[in-house]
Amino acid sequence: MEAAALSRIGLAGLAVMGQNLALNVAEKGFPISVYNRTTSKVDETLDRAHNEGQLPLTGHYTPRDFVLSIQKPRSVIILVKAGAPVDQTIAALTEHMEPGDTIIDGGNEWYENTERRIVEANSKGLLYLGMGVSGGEEGARNGPSLMPGGSFDAYNNIKDIVEKVAAQVEDGPCVTYIGEGGSGNFVKMVHNGIEYGDMQLISEAYDVLKNVGGLSNSELAEIFDEWNRGELESFLIEITADIFKVKDEHGEGELVDKILDKTGMKGTGKWTVQQAAELSVAAPTIAASLDCRYLSGLKDEREAAAKVLAEAGLKEEVGTVRSGIDKKRLIDDVRQALYASKICSYAQGMNLLRAKSLEKNWNLNFGELARIWKGGCIIRAVFLDRIKKAYQRNPDLASLVVDPDFAKEMVQRQAAWRRVVGLAISAGISTPGMCASLAYFDTYRRARLPANLVQAQRDLFGAHTYERVDRPGAFHTEWTKLARKNA
Amino acid sequence: MEAAALSRIGLAGLAVMGQNLALNVAEKGFPISVYNRTTSKVDETLDRAHNEGQLPLTGHYTPRDFVLSIQKPRSVIILVKAGAPVDQTIAALTEHMEPGDTIIDGGNEWYENTERRIVEANSKGLLYLGMGVSGGEEGARNGPSLMPGGSFDAYNNIKDIVEKVAAQVEDGPCVTYIGEGGSGNFVKMVHNGIEYGDMQLISEAYDVLKNVGGLSNSELAEIFDEWNRGELESFLIEITADIFKVKDEHGEGELVDKILDKTGMKGTGKWTVQQAAELSVAAPTIAASLDCRYLSGLKDEREAAAKVLAEAGLKEEVGTVRSGIDKKRLIDDVRQALYASKICSYAQGMNLLRAKSLEKNWNLNFGELARIWKGGCIIRAVFLDRIKKAYQRNPDLASLVVDPDFAKEMVQRQAAWRRVVGLAISAGISTPGMCASLAYFDTYRRARLPANLVQAQRDLFGAHTYERVDRPGAFHTEWTKLARKNA
Repeated sequence: MEAAALSRIGLAGLAVMGQNLALNVAEKGFPISVYNRTTSKVDETLDRAHNEGQLPLTGHYTPRDFVLSIQKPRSVIILVKAGAPVDQTIAALTEHMEPGDTIIDGGNEWYENTERRIVEANSKGLLYLGMGVSGGEEGARNGPSLMPGGSFDAYNNIKDIVEKVAAQVEDGPCVTYIGEGGSGNFVKMVHNGIEYGDMQLISEAYDVLKNVGGLSNSELAEIFDEWNRGELESFLIEITADIFKVKDEHGEGELVDKILDKTGMKGTGKWTVQQAAELSVAAPTIAASLDCRYLSGLKDEREAAAKVLAEAGLKEEVGTVRSGIDKKRLIDDVRQALYASKICSYAQGMNLLRAKSLEKNWNLNFGELARIWKGGCIIRAVFLDRIKKAYQRNPDLASLVVDPDFAKEMVQRQAAWRRVVGLAISAGISTPGMCASLAYFDTYRRARLPANLVQAQRDLFGAHTYERVDRPGAFHTEWTKLARKNA
Repeated sequence: MEAAALSRIGLAGLAVMGQNLALNVAEKGFPISVYNRTTSKVDETLDRAHNEGQLPLTGHYTPRDFVLSIQKPRSVIILVKAGAPVDQTIAALTEHMEPGDTIIDGGNEWYENTERRIVEANSKGLLYLGMGVSGGEEGARNGPSLMPGGSFDAYNNIKDIVEKVAAQVEDGPCVTYIGEGGSGNFVKMVHNGIEYGDMQLISEAYDVLKNVGGLSNSELAEIFDEWNRGELESFLIEITADIFKVKDEHGEGELVDKILDKTGMKGTGKWTVQQAAELSVAAPTIAASLDCRYLSGLKDEREAAAKVLAEAGLKEEVGTVRSGIDKKRLIDDVRQALYASKICSYAQGMNLLRAKSLEKNWNLNFGELARIWKGGCIIRAVFLDRIKKAYQRNPDLASLVVDPDFAKEMVQRQAAWRRVVGLAISAGISTPGMCASLAYFDTYRRARLPANLVQAQRDLFGAHTYERVDRPGAFHTEWTKLARKNA
């Protein structure tokens, strides 16, 4: 093969995401080599490259041919299942790679696996990037949000490519160098945690509007369309409106009502919650979304519990609550509650990133992260521009909820927010995410919490000592003795 | 030293907990050898043994003398800081131990560390127990709750001792063989998670009564005393009543008001939350208690947030809410809300234990666990007898909330529960634990959740497929295409 015929980059792992990303790269004018262990996928991708505009893409059937078809220093993206398959793919490819070449893992990988692989790659003179890719299959084909972390040199080798391949928004391509080590994977993980939160909050808004407000699917479609023209404008709101419009081809009404209420999940939401606990960061809204996925899975238990715990009584209660509802006001209140709850969820996610950035010295740029999430990814939203600006105004912002603009919005919306959550509670409709956001807000904004009592208890039974509000030092008190003496 | 003079058991690690547990063992008539690296602690313990009734306790100043002073097969309890100090102590002692001897770690150890040490001990022919000890310093001296897991033979070697040393309740001593491996540590970890939940819920009850109800400390003391004579009767309610009675020796009023509202924590609460996520078990009440400890630590941020987020407005709101309060009814409602929230928290903890028991084949006996928590430990309560009975009635109970007795109690209390949480929300007083419990209850008891929407979203952007309520199979829909077609 002549040097002139070498590809600019390679991609291994041709499930739909991999195929789509390869075609995207090729379409942007970068000749790309592709490889997959099951060779039929290679042919499939070649066919698509041909059919989708004679794109500059070559297929290869062995790791060796694949690697040797790429110009040096080589950059190879791998898009296979996280964990062991990544190690296997790396082993197969690196056999043929040379010092200075780069591996780019585009999967949803646990960041510590990436950090281990960076060390292994470096020992062979190879560079490594762990690159979060968000946007699903459609985003991969037409412009994802990309979160590459690891070797800065490796990033510079592919900068021209990823800046063209990524989604484009008015302030640039949705990609930036995230930081060292596993930061790209970690940021993608938190992005997914935030995505869990958004989806949960939207499902709660739907629940209240449907089951308390009594709205039909067509009304819901209309409202989500309307919301998508305001402060909530985002991909998830847009697709929610679409979902309510789809008719059931197997029967009456809309398809959404026929879908089983059991949600699947991948590891990233779980990892987000575990990392939040590890780093002493409260992330209750994200945790609530994970819990609801777990509880949704217990369909049989829930059906049994509904019988035992008098869902009949619940229905009466909903009826009573519903009869007093001003539908228009409820809709407006729910919009505000959703928005305020969402701010709290993002505040949690950003603060988790900040804690990790400090721990790992990643020096994350939160404004930039918000910017590259503005397009391509699942949480893309107009709202992210406001987050970008908040961190540009103050890179050391303690929390999004105290940014002057967001703070003003939260204060304006709190009455509506409290009405919605209160109404849901009295109707027996749980809004775990909205409740968690509101409790987070109320806890964070209180100068004095009842934690003094907890400290007193801990000192009483464990001699853990306590501090005082009015003088320095650590104190211990013989509580029981003194209490009984006073009695 | 003659054989007749050998001790029945040994204990290494003489901080207050270790000293107290050694004295407790000696007081029950079992001659005990003690050892500590810092030898002054040995002398201190010898003095105490002398002063507290000429107890049969001998002090030793080297690991060798200590180990050789114990009769074979030797049982040695170690009570040092979890982690590396445990490994160091084991290394120092095992040098002198013989096959058939037993190490018993009484610390709050991560269960996987215990499982590693079991393997290491077995390779030397030694037996091993990881034994959770609850009850604080006072419990160690007068009767703790003990949760030994690991070698059943090792347990039988010390059964006569621990059954005397443990707290005694009407249905036996507060100790039982928990199961294999690290089960004793795991059960203790979840016990601590439940303890976090209890303390959080009590602090919320205090918060609502004080800040919405306007109750004074002396009124609070009276109410907690009264609650301690009913269904809430427990150690934590009892000590809470005591805390409100203690005057501040440095100034006016009660000490509780002078305590800084920043709470410390150890690792067990965090581990509980992380394990719940790992095992796909929802434990939102326990998680809320952990989050509140984290947020309590951000005192400076909270003070700043209180200014930005209009705590003034909040105070007015509290004033409005408070003016309409029927104090007596509020107190009764809060009692019911606390009890119902507590049931949910215990349900979460027990279900976490069940999930782990299944994963590890520990075959945990939940009724027995509830029984051994009835005395000695921090969460000891009359209520635990009801949990014991629930699992005796049905060892396969899916959740405490569907046990017929508990279910009835929850249904009876739900109106009061909703009133308290609703009131707190409108007053801007966060009750994160009660909210989390209520949302858990409302989610678990709903046959149909809005999770259908989440599945539709996941199918739309990630082709994750969904199930239907009316026919088997996995389905995928081209949502956007169909929605736009219908429009």
